[in-house]
Amino acid sequence: MKKIVVASDHRGGVILEDVIKLLEKHGVIVSTIDEQGKDATDDYMDICKVVGREVKNGIVDGAVLVCGTGIGMMMGANRIKGCRAVLADSIERVYFARRHEDANILVYPAGYTDGRKAIKTPEHKFLEQTIIEFLHTEFEQGRHVRRIQKLDK
Amino acid sequence: MKKIVVASDHRGGVILEDVIKLLEKHGVIVSTIDEQGKDATDDYMDICKVVGREVKNGIVDGAVLVCGTGIGMMMGANRIKGCRAVLADSIERVYFARRHEDANILVYPAGYTDGRKAIKTPEHKFLEQTIIEFLHTEFEQGRHVRRIQKLDK
Repeated sequence: MKKIVVASDHRGGVILEDVIKLLEKHGVIVSTIDEQGKDATDDYMDICKVVGREVKNGIVDGAVLVCGTGIGMMMGANRIKGCRAVLADSIERVYFARRHEDANILVYPAGYTDGRKAIKTPEHKFLEQTIIEFLHTEFEQGRHVRRIQKLDK
Repeated sequence: MKKIVVASDHRGGVILEDVIKLLEKHGVIVSTIDEQGKDATDDYMDICKVVGREVKNGIVDGAVLVCGTGIGMMMGANRIKGCRAVLADSIERVYFARRHEDANILVYPAGYTDGRKAIKTPEHKFLEQTIIEFLHTEFEQGRHVRRIQKLDK
């Protein structure tokens, strides 16, 4: 993945800069959107729609989304054809989401669990490891091609 | 949630009976579907469509889906209007998915991480705790109503 769009709602901003820096460190051309969340009046689905359109139309190769729990962004992104979003809650999960579902959207929970872990780890190791996994794990193809095609039928 | 439909692909069968027993123990009327996965020719989206239709049309109050990693079922279920699916990877995540997104579909990974943990824990504590959380945590309402409505627009 060479080009990735990054966006968050009002609660995700806390780790957004770190995500952007790590993506750039690993050679990704990062873009953002004007509809970035600023306060509690923003809704994850509005952001998912803008980002999802870019992914679906091939303007970018993938996306990284951040909200408080990650759940809203994950549900919203998966509503959109061509988008396959997974919550980055373990390296193993990101690995399998790339191998089996060709996941093209990685979602971080800024406020809880792994988001907190990501922030508190000195070198942001978890964040970087999951980003590397997302960028470099190859889709397995085979029977999984049929399965992801069915998602959009 | 009084009525819940339960389904798995070919890899999820290993914990399906346990899920059904636990749901019944907690007072749920459990149903299954004819399209249950039996071998590697089944695809998660076919199962999601049948289950999603029941959820969307109010035939059941919710669903529990199981596949190997949980990722395919999670993505597939979230493709369908009226369905809000979350991977049951922690009690905290199930709690927030109920509070903020009114999650109506719980997904278990039978093959990895918490699926394995669920199977190996003698009293299946993790499985039961997440099921209790899913059944009894109330949706917070408020601004979250607007957000989940936007998922289906």
